[in-house]
Amino acid sequence: MERRSFLKNAGVGLATGAVAMPAIAQSAPTIKWRLASSFPKSLDTIYGGAEHMAKRVAEATGGKFQIQVFAGGEIVPGPAVFDAVKDGTVEMGHTVSYYFFGKDPTYALETAVPFGMTNRQMDAWMRYGNGGKLLGEFFGRSNIMPIPCGNTGTQMGGWYRKEIKTVADIKGLKIRIGGFAGAVLSKLGAVPQQIPGGDIYPALEKGTIDAAEWIGPYDDQKLGFNKVAKYYYYPGWWEGGPQVSAYVNTKKWAELPKEYQAILLIACADAHVDMMAKYDARNPTALKQLVGSGTQLRQFPKEVMDASYKAAMELYAETSAKNPDFKKVYDDYKKFMDDQNLWFRVAEGSYANFMYSKR
Amino acid sequence: MERRSFLKNAGVGLATGAVAMPAIAQSAPTIKWRLASSFPKSLDTIYGGAEHMAKRVAEATGGKFQIQVFAGGEIVPGPAVFDAVKDGTVEMGHTVSYYFFGKDPTYALETAVPFGMTNRQMDAWMRYGNGGKLLGEFFGRSNIMPIPCGNTGTQMGGWYRKEIKTVADIKGLKIRIGGFAGAVLSKLGAVPQQIPGGDIYPALEKGTIDAAEWIGPYDDQKLGFNKVAKYYYYPGWWEGGPQVSAYVNTKKWAELPKEYQAILLIACADAHVDMMAKYDARNPTALKQLVGSGTQLRQFPKEVMDASYKAAMELYAETSAKNPDFKKVYDDYKKFMDDQNLWFRVAEGSYANFMYSKR
Repeated sequence: MERRSFLKNAGVGLATGAVAMPAIAQSAPTIKWRLASSFPKSLDTIYGGAEHMAKRVAEATGGKFQIQVFAGGEIVPGPAVFDAVKDGTVEMGHTVSYYFFGKDPTYALETAVPFGMTNRQMDAWMRYGNGGKLLGEFFGRSNIMPIPCGNTGTQMGGWYRKEIKTVADIKGLKIRIGGFAGAVLSKLGAVPQQIPGGDIYPALEKGTIDAAEWIGPYDDQKLGFNKVAKYYYYPGWWEGGPQVSAYVNTKKWAELPKEYQAILLIACADAHVDMMAKYDARNPTALKQLVGSGTQLRQFPKEVMDASYKAAMELYAETSAKNPDFKKVYDDYKKFMDDQNLWFRVAEGSYANFMYSKR
Repeated sequence: MERRSFLKNAGVGLATGAVAMPAIAQSAPTIKWRLASSFPKSLDTIYGGAEHMAKRVAEATGGKFQIQVFAGGEIVPGPAVFDAVKDGTVEMGHTVSYYFFGKDPTYALETAVPFGMTNRQMDAWMRYGNGGKLLGEFFGRSNIMPIPCGNTGTQMGGWYRKEIKTVADIKGLKIRIGGFAGAVLSKLGAVPQQIPGGDIYPALEKGTIDAAEWIGPYDDQKLGFNKVAKYYYYPGWWEGGPQVSAYVNTKKWAELPKEYQAILLIACADAHVDMMAKYDARNPTALKQLVGSGTQLRQFPKEVMDASYKAAMELYAETSAKNPDFKKVYDDYKKFMDDQNLWFRVAEGSYANFMYSKR
């Protein structure tokens, strides 16, 4: 239940505002936008972030600013959201920028890269580091303004039919995984496969692939991977804290009344907190049910983590050497993140580890 | 720099909305509220959360809903904010509810209690656990609606003139600390002192107290404690993720137009993310400067953490036995938190620890 339950229990309700604003209804501009999401409705927590944001905008404007949300494929295919917003076919999108890794790996830095930031660190870099500025510049060339609008938190490392005990077990591993993560695993001899969500289960079942990474307990449980793969590995080192983003076409943004611009930004911030909170509230129950049904949790061995890390750093050096845009953003990202981890290990890390030991 | 820099760099600006809304300026009600903060302006990150929220509200309403923010002591003394909102002397407050621990320890659960939730866990409990509902009921009896409006993240364990090597070093320790934390340390023989921020430095300097906890590197550096105490301990186990809160008088809330209610809630959410991001961006630099100037970081020994944890659990059992309101909320809080930590140690914890090792 959302926070409105606490409003009701405090004896107040959002719907009982005593002062009506009939004049607003007559005079404020009615604006109707379309938002194309990259996600299916079945990914209810991620997809739902856009609906949550649109609802907040409608409430804040008395229904005058309406953003109609379409799931991936309804009007725009999921992978085409970037271009649809860029071209102004739709005013907004809701997506994860690493889907556009193929256009330029720099886009991935707006979501997550292997051994990258957590959600807290992304928020700090976006608002008070150079993240907002650097990414604004880069996306701005495509007439897109990206706005943080969700995070999933650290993801799981995926479902495996066999255990991963040494780096040798990565060689030849046919694993459903994309983008930078797939490129890193290729360096270790894996065979990454890009397979859409709905096609993963049959591929794992048949053994066409040996492993698949998706998201975390809540979303993975829905796709039933536990029925066809026994081992659930952690952590998903390729997604330490992947940011989900709202895209706004910059020309359409400029046409908005200032008040609607302000409302859109804070509605995205509310959806941003909300998605993270929803995942955190839902994942524990799903994890317990998966383990209860026979799933075996496994931590990646240290040698696998170390080898993956080394391969990732090599990949970033290679990418930076070829791509000055990537280098510019990644250098700033890495420096900021290193300082974050210097601090986070002190109070946050020691406290968290103590509390885990008491569970 | 705030996110508006990325808007500028994407070629757009908040101020260049092409569509003016003159009709709004004539017809929407102008509402002017006063918000009493518990904090001094010198605590710029915490105090600033209220100003940030008020600015977002003004932008979203074209200046029609104005919330004037007063620092602690300007119109209401910091500790009197609860009563000022309850009585309707001011429409809003910005504070930390554990300041009202003396009225009822249950209030502390809205902020932080020893060995309590992190900021992520609080967000999940407030929005998708029972936190919002249970606290809404409790605060509602005092005509107050609390809204999450900031977090500091896990705090440091304070400044010490001598090292803490065993539990015996806690005995007789004169330490500036308040609320539940002080009660826990009393069980271990410490002598907790409630001293306001501005008076801590001279007390530490003269040796009237042996130690003092405040907040974290950014805020502590400003008060210069490093000049009078050498050892900086971690973690602040009494504040795993303390929530800062906006209070709204429930009668005043009910009089707001629905749109202003919706705007107020999402403006608080924006300030909530923003404060955490600001702390995370600022703390690393302050920590490096403190260590660079000679501060010695020390982790509390395991036996001290274990003894403190045991004393805290005893205190909660004692408090629950006497106070059914506390028991009702704490039982739910503890159960939710335990499930959170079950999950958090898996992906989040393993990833964080690996990244700390690479720093």
